[in-house]
Amino acid sequence: MSVERLRARIDRATARTAEAGLAGLLVTPGSDLAYLTGYDPLPLERMTLLVLVPGRDPVLLVPALERPAALVAPGAEALEVVGWAEGDDPYEAAAGRLPAGPLAISDQAWASHAIALQRAAQGAFTTIGAALPLLRAVKDEEELARLRAVGAAADAAFADILGLRFEGRRELDVAADLADALRSHGHQSVDFTIVGSGPNGASPHHDASERTIRTGDAVVLDFGGHMDGYCSDTSRTVVVGEPAEELRRVHGTVRRAQQAGVDAVLPGATCEQVDAAARAVIDEAGYGERFIHRTGHGIGLDVHEPPYIVAGNTTPLEVGMTFSVEPGIYLPERLGVRIEDIVAVTEAGAERFNDSPRDLVIVA
Amino acid sequence: MSVERLRARIDRATARTAEAGLAGLLVTPGSDLAYLTGYDPLPLERMTLLVLVPGRDPVLLVPALERPAALVAPGAEALEVVGWAEGDDPYEAAAGRLPAGPLAISDQAWASHAIALQRAAQGAFTTIGAALPLLRAVKDEEELARLRAVGAAADAAFADILGLRFEGRRELDVAADLADALRSHGHQSVDFTIVGSGPNGASPHHDASERTIRTGDAVVLDFGGHMDGYCSDTSRTVVVGEPAEELRRVHGTVRRAQQAGVDAVLPGATCEQVDAAARAVIDEAGYGERFIHRTGHGIGLDVHEPPYIVAGNTTPLEVGMTFSVEPGIYLPERLGVRIEDIVAVTEAGAERFNDSPRDLVIVA
Repeated sequence: MSVERLRARIDRATARTAEAGLAGLLVTPGSDLAYLTGYDPLPLERMTLLVLVPGRDPVLLVPALERPAALVAPGAEALEVVGWAEGDDPYEAAAGRLPAGPLAISDQAWASHAIALQRAAQGAFTTIGAALPLLRAVKDEEELARLRAVGAAADAAFADILGLRFEGRRELDVAADLADALRSHGHQSVDFTIVGSGPNGASPHHDASERTIRTGDAVVLDFGGHMDGYCSDTSRTVVVGEPAEELRRVHGTVRRAQQAGVDAVLPGATCEQVDAAARAVIDEAGYGERFIHRTGHGIGLDVHEPPYIVAGNTTPLEVGMTFSVEPGIYLPERLGVRIEDIVAVTEAGAERFNDSPRDLVIVA
Repeated sequence: MSVERLRARIDRATARTAEAGLAGLLVTPGSDLAYLTGYDPLPLERMTLLVLVPGRDPVLLVPALERPAALVAPGAEALEVVGWAEGDDPYEAAAGRLPAGPLAISDQAWASHAIALQRAAQGAFTTIGAALPLLRAVKDEEELARLRAVGAAADAAFADILGLRFEGRRELDVAADLADALRSHGHQSVDFTIVGSGPNGASPHHDASERTIRTGDAVVLDFGGHMDGYCSDTSRTVVVGEPAEELRRVHGTVRRAQQAGVDAVLPGATCEQVDAAARAVIDEAGYGERFIHRTGHGIGLDVHEPPYIVAGNTTPLEVGMTFSVEPGIYLPERLGVRIEDIVAVTEAGAERFNDSPRDLVIVA
């Protein structure tokens, strides 16, 4: 990551800060800080804070013992890096750097830092997600390449899993295989490996349990992690042996809904239009009450980030935005089906970053 | 984790809430929620919130789609689990559950949730770390057993590393070996693998770089991760080939300082007394200015948690508290030395959970 690219991101963030009527941004360790500076320390109890104020040079406040590490970050050259000494009050140190007027802090800033900074500040206090939700939403070519690569790695892991045995094994065993496969295809971290078999599939965020998978079960697989900083997140639903008629019908409905959602992706279409397109298919099939979550979420450095593909979100899609399209149907105590791809908005519509088979794959 | 143990923790937390003059606690996903309920979802943008109010039954507010997962958590029986529907405002849903008066929220709550809840609340707003820092500080027997086990696993990983080659390899290669060794000894996650060779050792939180390790280098190794929910964190400094006289002197000083810190651990001694005991040895040796961080931090479900072993912290130690004792000396552009063990406070003094050799080990 070149300092020029990071400087351009900081300049853009600072310009948007002014446009949004904010006096400054307070950026804490996590994706916002990594995006703007290339500096990605563990979030911890000692305050690390990038202060961006229109018309001033950016300042990164760090614990003194972290200063050497911060100084070698890719974007350090674009920043004044100031250490605060162990034993000093970092929020007092920050107070002198905060402009008067409304401030926005990173959504994932720890409350311990946010509340102390709010006390040190003189104006209204909000979050970057509320004030500048699209700060990281439009990806550049290098980001798109990384998301494409991590999506392909997740697809390769799924292909590996299809060759393994499901029947007679626990969800936890399949989840462990899935984690191994993600790592073997280059993921540096595995963040979730949902294996929801039979009735467990009806809970969208069921993790993986001791339940033994049986013939006839639908199995929701929803998995992802990080590779080179960017996230994967994809879902498929498979069946152990021949599917029952109901499962065929539900799966076919979800598949058509997912396609309709992807087809609705165009520059200028709104987030809620994508949601509505997927939802209409499920509504028409009579399962509207059983599609109990939004259609998707943005993805990038975070697995969930703006834009959210949900009713009420009138944000227009722009070329370079990336998000999931993942409708599902959940029949309590019976089964669940979800199909999820990550897509990018292009001039021509959607480019899928996942391309595992979307038909109902039969596993052993 | 039995529901009785979790209920006892909730009762204790609620009693302390009242004693501290708080109207309630707001507990978000992460270690606080796992500790009190056994429920440990990924922290995400959808609000999950445990509301503890003295005199009322505990309520867990979760996104509707997470409710099935929350209901099978170990502590669910002790809670009223309420789902809020996709599209509703969760903070409005929470507002009706919040008592009048001062509230404390989890330190690691996301700012997006904390600031919205603060708006929904009617009283003063602080953090659990500020108001009830010792909520999880005294460990029970099962917690101590897990910390002992993860400490032993980290020691076993260190023993593996000593047999490997350092000279001519990059810090990143040694860090990868260390991560593999931690996993092979049972760690489910590896959270940090600091390899600070030669001048890089002088930055306490240097990670691991492309630098090739050379003969004569001191190498600071500081590593840890999670096993069965609890954290390891230990440091040793090794030397490649015969050490120079200065390194011998610095290492000997840090070793004596670490022993002095451990020797100062007794029920009723204060956190700052432990810090002062370690610091005195380094001061007397003339390196006082080069010990640039506190002596230690509590550890448990989080790798850093109260109590902090730092000047100004007059908290008296209690049997069952666990923390690091990790003095260091850092000579800019030359070398660093740090020795770190996790200890538990017992009636008799300190029990060490790390017992790797503390002498200056020579590696190849």
